Amino acid sequence: MSTYGKLFRVTTYGESHCASVGAIIDGCPPGLEITAADIQVQLSRRRPGQSNLTTPRDEKDLVHLQSGTERGVTLGTPIGLLVKNEDQRPHDYSETDLYPRPSHADYTYLEKYGIKASSGGGRSSARETIGRVAAGAIAEKYLKLAYGIEIVAFVSSVGKIHLPSSVAPPSLVASGDEDDDEAQDALSEEFRHLIKTITREEVDKFSTRCPHPETSERMTQRIIRAKDAQDSIGGTVTCVIRNVPSGLGEPVFDKFEATLGHAMLSIPATKAFEIGSGFKGTEVPGSKHNDAFVRRADGKLGTTTNWSGGVQGGITNGEDIYFRIGFKSPATISQGQQTAQYDGTPGELAARGRHDPCVVPRAVPIVEAMAAIVVMDQLLIQNSRKTAASLLPPITTLPPSMVQPKSSKAV
Amino acid sequence: MSTYGKLFRVTTYGESHCASVGAIIDGCPPGLEITAADIQVQLSRRRPGQSNLTTPRDEKDLVHLQSGTERGVTLGTPIGLLVKNEDQRPHDYSETDLYPRPSHADYTYLEKYGIKASSGGGRSSARETIGRVAAGAIAEKYLKLAYGIEIVAFVSSVGKIHLPSSVAPPSLVASGDEDDDEAQDALSEEFRHLIKTITREEVDKFSTRCPHPETSERMTQRIIRAKDAQDSIGGTVTCVIRNVPSGLGEPVFDKFEATLGHAMLSIPATKAFEIGSGFKGTEVPGSKHNDAFVRRADGKLGTTTNWSGGVQGGITNGEDIYFRIGFKSPATISQGQQTAQYDGTPGELAARGRHDPCVVPRAVPIVEAMAAIVVMDQLLIQNSRKTAASLLPPITTLPPSMVQPKSSKAV
Amino acid sequence: MSTYGKLFRVTTYGESHCASVGAIIDGCPPGLEITAADIQVQLSRRRPGQSNLTTPRDEKDLVHLQSGTERGVTLGTPIGLLVKNEDQRPHDYSETDLYPRPSHADYTYLEKYGIKASSGGGRSSARETIGRVAAGAIAEKYLKLAYGIEIVAFVSSVGKIHLPSSVAPPSLVASGDEDDDEAQDALSEEFRHLIKTITREEVDKFSTRCPHPETSERMTQRIIRAKDAQDSIGGTVTCVIRNVPSGLGEPVFDKFEATLGHAMLSIPATKAFEIGSGFKGTEVPGSKHNDAFVRRADGKLGTTTNWSGGVQGGITNGEDIYFRIGFKSPATISQGQQTAQYDGTPGELAARGRHDPCVVPRAVPIVEAMAAIVVMDQLLIQNSRKTAASLLPPITTLPPSMVQPKSSKAV
Amino acid sequence: MSTYGKLFRVTTYGESHCASVGAIIDGCPPGLEITAADIQVQLSRRRPGQSNLTTPRDEKDLVHLQSGTERGVTLGTPIGLLVKNEDQRPHDYSETDLYPRPSHADYTYLEKYGIKASSGGGRSSARETIGRVAAGAIAEKYLKLAYGIEIVAFVSSVGKIHLPSSVAPPSLVASGDEDDDEAQDALSEEFRHLIKTITREEVDKFSTRCPHPETSERMTQRIIRAKDAQDSIGGTVTCVIRNVPSGLGEPVFDKFEATLGHAMLSIPATKAFEIGSGFKGTEVPGSKHNDAFVRRADGKLGTTTNWSGGVQGGITNGEDIYFRIGFKSPATISQGQQTAQYDGTPGELAARGRHDPCVVPRAVPIVEAMAAIVVMDQLLIQNSRKTAASLLPPITTLPPSMVQPKSSKAV
Repeated sequence: MSTYGKLFRVTTYGESHCASVGAIIDGCPPGLEITAADIQVQLSRRRPGQSNLTTPRDEKDLVHLQSGTERGVTLGTPIGLLVKNEDQRPHDYSETDLYPRPSHADYTYLEKYGIKASSGGGRSSARETIGRVAAGAIAEKYLKLAYGIEIVAFVSSVGKIHLPSSVAPPSLVASGDEDDDEAQDALSEEFRHLIKTITREEVDKFSTRCPHPETSERMTQRIIRAKDAQDSIGGTVTCVIRNVPSGLGEPVFDKFEATLGHAMLSIPATKAFEIGSGFKGTEVPGSKHNDAFVRRADGKLGTTTNWSGGVQGGITNGEDIYFRIGFKSPATISQGQQTAQYDGTPGELAARGRHDPCVVPRAVPIVEAMAAIVVMDQLLIQNSRKTAASLLPPITTLPPSMVQPKSSKAV
Repeated sequence: MSTYGKLFRVTTYGESHCASVGAIIDGCPPGLEITAADIQVQLSRRRPGQSNLTTPRDEKDLVHLQSGTERGVTLGTPIGLLVKNEDQRPHDYSETDLYPRPSHADYTYLEKYGIKASSGGGRSSARETIGRVAAGAIAEKYLKLAYGIEIVAFVSSVGKIHLPSSVAPPSLVASGDEDDDEAQDALSEEFRHLIKTITREEVDKFSTRCPHPETSERMTQRIIRAKDAQDSIGGTVTCVIRNVPSGLGEPVFDKFEATLGHAMLSIPATKAFEIGSGFKGTEVPGSKHNDAFVRRADGKLGTTTNWSGGVQGGITNGEDIYFRIGFKSPATISQGQQTAQYDGTPGELAARGRHDPCVVPRAVPIVEAMAAIVVMDQLLIQNSRKTAASLLPPITTLPPSMVQPKSSKAV
Repeated sequence: MSTYGKLFRVTTYGESHCASVGAIIDGCPPGLEITAADIQVQLSRRRPGQSNLTTPRDEKDLVHLQSGTERGVTLGTPIGLLVKNEDQRPHDYSETDLYPRPSHADYTYLEKYGIKASSGGGRSSARETIGRVAAGAIAEKYLKLAYGIEIVAFVSSVGKIHLPSSVAPPSLVASGDEDDDEAQDALSEEFRHLIKTITREEVDKFSTRCPHPETSERMTQRIIRAKDAQDSIGGTVTCVIRNVPSGLGEPVFDKFEATLGHAMLSIPATKAFEIGSGFKGTEVPGSKHNDAFVRRADGKLGTTTNWSGGVQGGITNGEDIYFRIGFKSPATISQGQQTAQYDGTPGELAARGRHDPCVVPRAVPIVEAMAAIVVMDQLLIQNSRKTAASLLPPITTLPPSMVQPKSSKAV
Repeated sequence: MSTYGKLFRVTTYGESHCASVGAIIDGCPPGLEITAADIQVQLSRRRPGQSNLTTPRDEKDLVHLQSGTERGVTLGTPIGLLVKNEDQRPHDYSETDLYPRPSHADYTYLEKYGIKASSGGGRSSARETIGRVAAGAIAEKYLKLAYGIEIVAFVSSVGKIHLPSSVAPPSLVASGDEDDDEAQDALSEEFRHLIKTITREEVDKFSTRCPHPETSERMTQRIIRAKDAQDSIGGTVTCVIRNVPSGLGEPVFDKFEATLGHAMLSIPATKAFEIGSGFKGTEVPGSKHNDAFVRRADGKLGTTTNWSGGVQGGITNGEDIYFRIGFKSPATISQGQQTAQYDGTPGELAARGRHDPCVVPRAVPIVEAMAAIVVMDQLLIQNSRKTAASLLPPITTLPPSMVQPKSSKAV
C-alpha cells in the first residue's frame, strides 16, 4: 500500500509520466520550521543528472508545498506536496508494447492489476521515491532539532568493489577458516570510527558517494565499464543513525530492525538488508559477539563493542544504529536481451533509452529518508508511552531491580 | 506492536513465566477444517527438547483452541488459542537482578518500559513465538488446500559451516575476482533443484534440519563444540515458498519482500534478510542477473533463471520464492562474561541456566510460520482486488498491450 | 488522522487558505473508467454559490487528476488529485486574532496543536470536504458499475421544519402515549417508497434538496429567516443506499453501522447519527420491531418491514440501508456574540464575513461521498473473504443447517 | 474486525458456546497497578442475573489474567485475559436449525461467512462484550490515576419512559412550535448538574440504572410488562466523561465524536448515537446554540453553556463530554413470530429460552468500557504529539496570536 507509518504517516502517489508525483505527510509535529528549501536539498541529491555516472536526464524536481505549513512553520495538519513531471517522453518506450522487460516490473504489474501504464512498471519507477525523500527531509529536520539525531548513508560497494576490510561493515570482513573462531572476527575499529564521524558533506565529495578515495575511484571505473558495456551493476549502501535514544521499537512484530528492514526493502531494487553484524553475526560465537556493557561518560550504560548495531531485543540501546542494504544491478539495460514477449513468443528485446548504469549513489538520500521516517514514527510511539507512564504514581510494590530509576525516564 | 497483518491478523501475548502464551487469529477464511492436531505438528517442531542439540527442557506445548471453530471447521470469527506455561522456574534467574545480560533484551526492555519482568527480557523470550507458529499452521493449512502452496525452511549454515557452493543460495557462492564478471556467478542449478523438491520430511531427518548429510554432520560437531565451550553459535535458515500465484505484494511500501523481510526480522535473534540473489545480486551485472522470460508449459510466462527469487517490482511473478535469514549467535551463554551491572559497576556475570547453544534448527518452523502469515495476508488483499476488478465491464478504450487477457485473471 | 479505510484508503490534505486541497485515493480497483468529469459532478453539487440559500462565494473547484489513471482508466495505483484554492481572502478574518469563535474550532485547534492557522480552525474548514467528495465520486462510480449500488441523500429537516410524518424516517414519527405500544409506531410505507425510488435528479429540483415541495418551501423560508437575522440554522440529512449485497460489515468493532457512523460523524458540524429505526427503535417493542423474513422474488430472504435499516448483527442483509445525520446550526454567524478572548477577557465578537446560514443542502453530496467510501471499503474486505472461502473444498462434516448453499455464495 | 484502537489496542475473541471469551490488550502503559479485582467489578456489573429485570442465568464470569502483569503491575507488554464459558446449553437452540431469528444475526452471519455457529449469531452474542468490559476497566484505571477522568453511564429511557424534561439530555426536551425559536430550547441546568455529579454508586442504587427514583420505578414496570408479554423493550443510555483534557481527537477522519460514535455503534443492538445537543442541536439557531467562552477559575477558557458536549471541531475542549446511545428492543423474544425459514418457507418460530426483556441496564458498563478505550487511545496519540512538539525550539517567527502560550501546553 502507499502509506507508511502509524503516527508519522507518509502517503505517496505518482509514476513516471503522469502530471506530478507527491505525498501527504500526516502526523508531523506542529511548530516545526520547514520550507521548500529544507526539502529541496535532499531532492536534489536524489535527482538524476548529478554526475557523469548517472543518467543525463536533468529533471529539476522542484517541490511545491500545498498545505500544512504557514509562514514556514508546520501546523500539525497534513503536509501536501508535489513535484511536477517535466520529462514525459512516452514514445521512447514503444518496445514495451510487446516485451515485458526482464527483471523489471512490467510483467508483475500486469499480473497484479490486469492493466499497466504505457510506460511499463508504473509505480516501480524511480520517480516514486520523490515523495519518500521529501517526507524524509521533514522527518529528519525534526529529529535533528529535537534530538540531535544524524543520519548519513554512503556507498559501501559497487559490484565486487568493496570498502577495504579495515573500514568495512562486519559482513564484508573475510571470515577466515571455519574451525578458527578467533581469526579475523573482530569488529573493525576503523569502521566504528567511520560511522561515528562520517558526514553528508564528506560523502558528497565523491560522485560515487563512497567516502574512501581509492575505493571510490575503483567504483567509478567499474560503473564506467558497465556503462560502456551497455550493462548495469549493483551495490550496497551502508547507513548510520546516530544519537537515537534508547527504547525505540515495538515488539514483537514491530521491532526496530523489522520496521527498518521493511522500509528499506520497499525501496526499488533492494534485495537484502542486514543490521549490525548481520550475516557475519551468524558466524561469530556468542562469547565474542555479545556486546559487554560499560558505564558511559553520561552515566548511562553503553556497550564496548557494537555487533548489535544499536538494537537489542528489537529495541534501540542508544548505540549507533548501522545497517546495510543490497541493491541489485538495475534491470533496465541498453544492450539487447533474449527473452519472450507477453504472449510467450521468444525474441530479442532491443536497446533503448538512457538509464543509470548504477543506482546506488542516487539511492543514498532515499535510504536516509526512509531511515528518518522509521525513526520518527517509532519515536512518536515511544514518546507516547513514556509520557503516559510518567503520569502514573510511583510504583512501590516491586523490587527495585524491576524498576528503572525515575531520572532516566525521559525519551 | 503485537499484531501482524491487515486482513489475516495475528495478535499474540505472553512471555516466559506467565500463565500462558497465546494468540488471536482474526480474519481466517470460514470453512477451513482445522484442529488442534494441525497446529500441534508445528508447535512440536518448534519446542525444545527434540534432540541433543537443543535445551533439555521438555515443554509439552499443547495447544488449546478457545473459539472460532465448531466441529473442527473455522467459522470466520477470531480463533483464540493458548499454550500453558509449565516450566516456570523464576529462581534460576536471580543473577539478572544485578546484571543486564549482554546483547540480550534485559537492558532495552527496562529502558523502553521503565519496568521489566523478573525473568528479564519479557517478550523477547523464545516462548513468544508459540503464538506465531500456531497462527502460521492455520495459514498454511489454508494455503495448501486452496492454492497448493508449500513452504519449507531448512538450515543453510551454522557458524562458518555452510552448504557447499554447488547447492547453496546465491549469496553463499564465492564471488571470484572483482574484475571478472563471468567467473562463478552462475545461479546454482543444484540449488534451484533443491528448493523445488525439498520437503519437511526430508529436512526433519536431520537434527540440524540441514538436509545435506555431510554438512549436517559438520554442523552437529560445530554445535557440540559450542555447547562444550559453554558458548553459542548462530546460523542461517533458507526458506522456499512454492506455488504462490503471481500478483502478490502491495507497492510501494508493502512490496512482497518488504513485508516478508519485516516478518522475518521480527523473529527473535534475526539480524539479516535477503531474497533471491540478495547481497550477491549486487555483484552480478544486469545483463547476467536479469531473468529472461520464457513460455511455460501452462502457457504463462516463467523465467529461465530466478535471481529475483520470485519477486519483481515488489510483486510475485509465480516463480519459487526463496530467501535467507541470519540468526546471530544466541546471547544467552553459560560461561562467565565481563560486563557491567545496571548501575554501571563492572563485574562478571556468572554462568547459569541451560540454553540452546544454537537456535537455528528450532527456528525452522518459526520461519515457515511467518512466511505463511505473510503470504496469507497478501493473498487476501490481492484476492479482493482481483475480484473487484473482475466485476467491472471490459475495458474497450485501451490498446491491447495495456490490458491483461481476461482468461489469466484468476488469482 | 487524515486517512480513512483499510483497503480503499482515502487520505486528504488542505485547509481554507493554502495552495490547494486534495486527496490520494489508494486501493481503487484497476480497470475503472474515471475522468475528471465524473468527479466534477459531485464537487459542483458541493460547492458554494449554487442558490440564494448558500454563501455567494463562487469557487469553481475544478479537480485536477495527477496520477493513477491513463487514458481515463484506473491503473490500480494511487489516484492523486487536487483542487486549487482561489478564494484566499485572509484579511476578512482579522478578528480571530483576539477571539476564538464560539463553537468553532479555533480554540480546540490551538489547544491541540499549540499553533493555529491564521484563518482559525484549519482543517475544520468546509473546504476540507472536497477531497472526500472527489474520493466518494470514484467509489460510487465503481459501486454503480459493479453492483448497481445507488446512493441518494436528501434534506429531511431544517430547524424544526421536518418532512411530514407520513413520509418521514422512523425517528420523526410522533411517539404517541407511553403506555400505548400500538399507536403510531408503524414504519411509514410512504417513507419506504420514498427511499426506494428517490433520485438525485429529484432531489436537485429543490434548492433545499428536500424532495417534498411543500416542506421544501417552508424550509426555504426558515433559512431566509435565519439569513435575515444574521443567524444560522441546522438540519438533518437522510440517506439511502440501495442494492448493497448482504454480508458487508466486520464484527465486532467494524460493524457496518459503526464504520458508517464513524464516517458520518467525521463530517464537519455533525452531532448525531442513527440507522434504521434509530432512537425510535428504542421505543417499539421487539415483537413489533423485529423484521420478519419472507422469500423474495429472487429466491433470497428479504424482510417484510425494515426497522433494521438494512443491517442486522452489524452486517448488511440486502435491504435498503437508510440513516439520518444531524448537522448542528453553523457556528459562524454574522451577528455579534458576547464571549471571551483567548486570554479570557470578555467582550463582543463582532459581525463579519459571508457564510452559509444553513449547510445541509450542500452537505448532501458529502454524505453520499462518505457513504460510498464506507461501502467500497467494506465490499473489498468481504470480497476477499468470499473469494478465499470459495477456493476451499466443500465442507462435508457439518450439519446442513450450519452451511450456506454454494449457489448463494457470490458477493 | 476484532481489534479496536491505534496505540491502545483491544482484540477480542469468543462467542456463546466456545471454551472461553477473552481479549488481548496491547499498548497499555507500563507501571499501572492492575489486578483481576479491578476488572471483576465491571464484569460483575455487566453479567446477567443481577436483578429480576434480567435473565436468570447466573454466570460467574471470573476473569483470569494470563500475561502482561507481574506482582500486580503492568509490564507494558500485551495483557492476555479470559473468562471461561460455563453456560453452554446448545440444545436450547435447536429451533435455529430451520429459522433465522428475525432481526437477529443468524441470517447475516450465514450470508457473510457461508457458515454459522450452531448457536446462531456467533459473535453477535452478548458474551462478546466481556472482552470489551475487561479492557475498558484497565483503561479507566489508568485514566482515573493519571488524569482524574471519570466515566459514568446511566439509563435515560426505557421504551417511551424518559427522564423528565427538566433533567433530560437536550434531545429529550420537547421542541415547541416550529416557528418559535425561543421556546423550550434552553439546555437544562438540572441535566448539566446531573452529569457533573452523577456517580456509579448512585446509578447502581437502581436495578434499572436510571438514577431518578420515580422514572426508575416506571421503567421497572415497563420492563416487567414486556417480560410478562414475552416481549422486549429498548432504551437509551446516556454517558458522561469528566475531566478529559482539551485537545483529544484526530481530524479529519478520527474526530473525537467519530471514534466515540464508532465505538458505541459497535456495541450489540445499538442503532443511534448523539453527542452534546445531538439531533436537538439541529433545531436551535446558531446564535443560541453557540457556547460562549468564559475564563474559568483555573485561568483556562471554558464555555457558559455546553451544547457542544465537550467537543468542538472534532477536538475535546475540556468541558464535560456527554452523549446518548439508542439500543433497539432486543430481537430475541419468547413469543411466537410469523416469519420464514432459511429456505423461504413461511411459518411460526416458536417461543424458547430465557432472555433479557431489556438490555439497557446491563449495557451501562459496556458503554463505560468503550468510552474508556476511546479516550485512552486518543490520549496516547495526543500525548505523543504534545511531547514531540515540546522538544522543538520555541517559534519566534509567528505572530503571537497563532501560538499557544507555553505554560498551557501539557496534556
